[in-house]
Amino acid sequence: MKPAESYARAGVHLDIAQEILNRIAGAVRSTYRSEVIAGLGAFAGLYRADALKAMAEPVLVASTDGVGTKLKVAARLGRWETIGYDLVHHCVNDILVHGARPLFFLDYIAAARLEPDVVVRVVESVAAACRAVGCVLLGGETAEMPGIYMPGELDLVGTIVGVVERHRIRDGRGIQPGDSLLALPSSGLHTNGYSLARKVLEDLDWESFMLELGASIGEALLAPHRCYLEPIRMLEEAGIEIKGLAHITGGGVFENLPRILPPGTAAVLHRGAWPEPPIFSLIQRLGHVDAGEMFRVFNMGLGIIMILDPEAAERALALRPEELFHVGEIVAGDRSVHIQGLT
Amino acid sequence: MKPAESYARAGVHLDIAQEILNRIAGAVRSTYRSEVIAGLGAFAGLYRADALKAMAEPVLVASTDGVGTKLKVAARLGRWETIGYDLVHHCVNDILVHGARPLFFLDYIAAARLEPDVVVRVVESVAAACRAVGCVLLGGETAEMPGIYMPGELDLVGTIVGVVERHRIRDGRGIQPGDSLLALPSSGLHTNGYSLARKVLEDLDWESFMLELGASIGEALLAPHRCYLEPIRMLEEAGIEIKGLAHITGGGVFENLPRILPPGTAAVLHRGAWPEPPIFSLIQRLGHVDAGEMFRVFNMGLGIIMILDPEAAERALALRPEELFHVGEIVAGDRSVHIQGLT
Repeated sequence: MKPAESYARAGVHLDIAQEILNRIAGAVRSTYRSEVIAGLGAFAGLYRADALKAMAEPVLVASTDGVGTKLKVAARLGRWETIGYDLVHHCVNDILVHGARPLFFLDYIAAARLEPDVVVRVVESVAAACRAVGCVLLGGETAEMPGIYMPGELDLVGTIVGVVERHRIRDGRGIQPGDSLLALPSSGLHTNGYSLARKVLEDLDWESFMLELGASIGEALLAPHRCYLEPIRMLEEAGIEIKGLAHITGGGVFENLPRILPPGTAAVLHRGAWPEPPIFSLIQRLGHVDAGEMFRVFNMGLGIIMILDPEAAERALALRPEELFHVGEIVAGDRSVHIQGLT
Repeated sequence: MKPAESYARAGVHLDIAQEILNRIAGAVRSTYRSEVIAGLGAFAGLYRADALKAMAEPVLVASTDGVGTKLKVAARLGRWETIGYDLVHHCVNDILVHGARPLFFLDYIAAARLEPDVVVRVVESVAAACRAVGCVLLGGETAEMPGIYMPGELDLVGTIVGVVERHRIRDGRGIQPGDSLLALPSSGLHTNGYSLARKVLEDLDWESFMLELGASIGEALLAPHRCYLEPIRMLEEAGIEIKGLAHITGGGVFENLPRILPPGTAAVLHRGAWPEPPIFSLIQRLGHVDAGEMFRVFNMGLGIIMILDPEAAERALALRPEELFHVGEIVAGDRSVHIQGLT
């Protein structure tokens, strides 16, 4: 007679899901504020929106994203303490460019088989990142999906919801030829281009210090996605008007900068005007990667690009000289991006 | 000399992501309402929250979920037209039990390699389901993650955000011994238990009509997750007070019903009082699955369980006799669930 089948024999372990829930409860609750009516244990997260009632024209701003195969870097190094920062910062930046501040976040972790120790560390890092940006971790889901994920691999997905006053939405309107492009630098690859980077670097030693990088390959690849909430907030509080912001993620400057360029404008970037983390030149050299392809795949040191009129740009540069770079200008054109000094 | 590396050679195809974006644009926009300020092409989705301003104490209600390995059923049958309904309905029900109505939705699709024809059909089904429940598909993400997903497999994740007036939140308070349990039936497995179902049924013919099921195995397994928004709304509009609602998902009645039971109460269900879709008895018989395990893994025909006082339950049953079932009672107890006639 065939043995009795069960969910556990089929690869899904409800007891492990429950163990994870118990172990992450403290970290998740540490992100709560008085707005949270229900979270852990409920069918959905409940968040009081009184603050929206006090706004003139509140607009909810939401984005879903993952961290790509940076997960495989974390897995190779066994380091899960920062991947949550990557996820949360990516999402925070995606709503920040529209002018929104975060309200709450939800995460999703799936694997062929959930390893409680890994899942707990990942959720703890998500919660820590949420706390740091003042965002509630309102909900989440873990899923065991044998046959869909490769053994030992996992995916991590996040959704952020924020809010902005309608008249403060930044949509690039008002951008015109003569405006300046300023950049806040990235810390490295952030969360894009890892499949290419790993392919080029996979056979090297990731643990030893490399003079060229000032770090090991592992450290350079794992450098967390930077959060631009504070620097942008400081510029705004100084009364500096930012006409448009582009978060340089998948597709690089060529795909992300045009998203905020109005018809009749184009952007010129001067390569050399901003620091390029050395991990990029290592990848380019070892992989014989075309320079244009590098800029299509990676942020190349450009974390966020801001567009301001020249006078506002001068004031911004004077205020934050150590972290702002004047990287280019708006010209007349067809919403394209040109890089001087590309080859 | 080694060949030049590129993102495409590393398994990530930006042109395919762009092709998908172009092909889904119409379906996504078909869900838009006047509240949408920005969606496709922006870094995040922007949704005017004027309706919240008009509320006394608006509470945002959010949930993230997947559809589990029902995806592998869709893949085996090559049928992607309903998987979006599964995803959206699961999420709608999760906020509905708290009393919330949906505002907007975001989706995430990831695979080792994105197949545009499949992704387009999946997003079209998500958009169709959103339209049907009056929910905007505000954002989404597609990701190619070679080495994380098994070749040919994909994951599908959704996040819903809805809203409820604070005084109308349903949290189970007021539930007391003597209250009645009514159920709205499920259509089948909904989105839980597929790893076990597939393991038990994998070697059978999924295409041929089976008298026992009144359908093929494939049809029975793919039956879409039911949406309970309309039946619950109708009961509310008739002035029938529902004290608590439980959506029976992963973990079955044993894990989901206690979520809304106040201390000092327990639930007794009378097996036989509601219809069990025949797919469950087929799985139980062929897999020699323990009856208790069946109720821990599957919804067993119980889509949503409502708790009402006996008089309200009578009125509800008189109003919707064809789709409501009186399945049990609240008794004094320790927040546990008992099933009479389990074995």
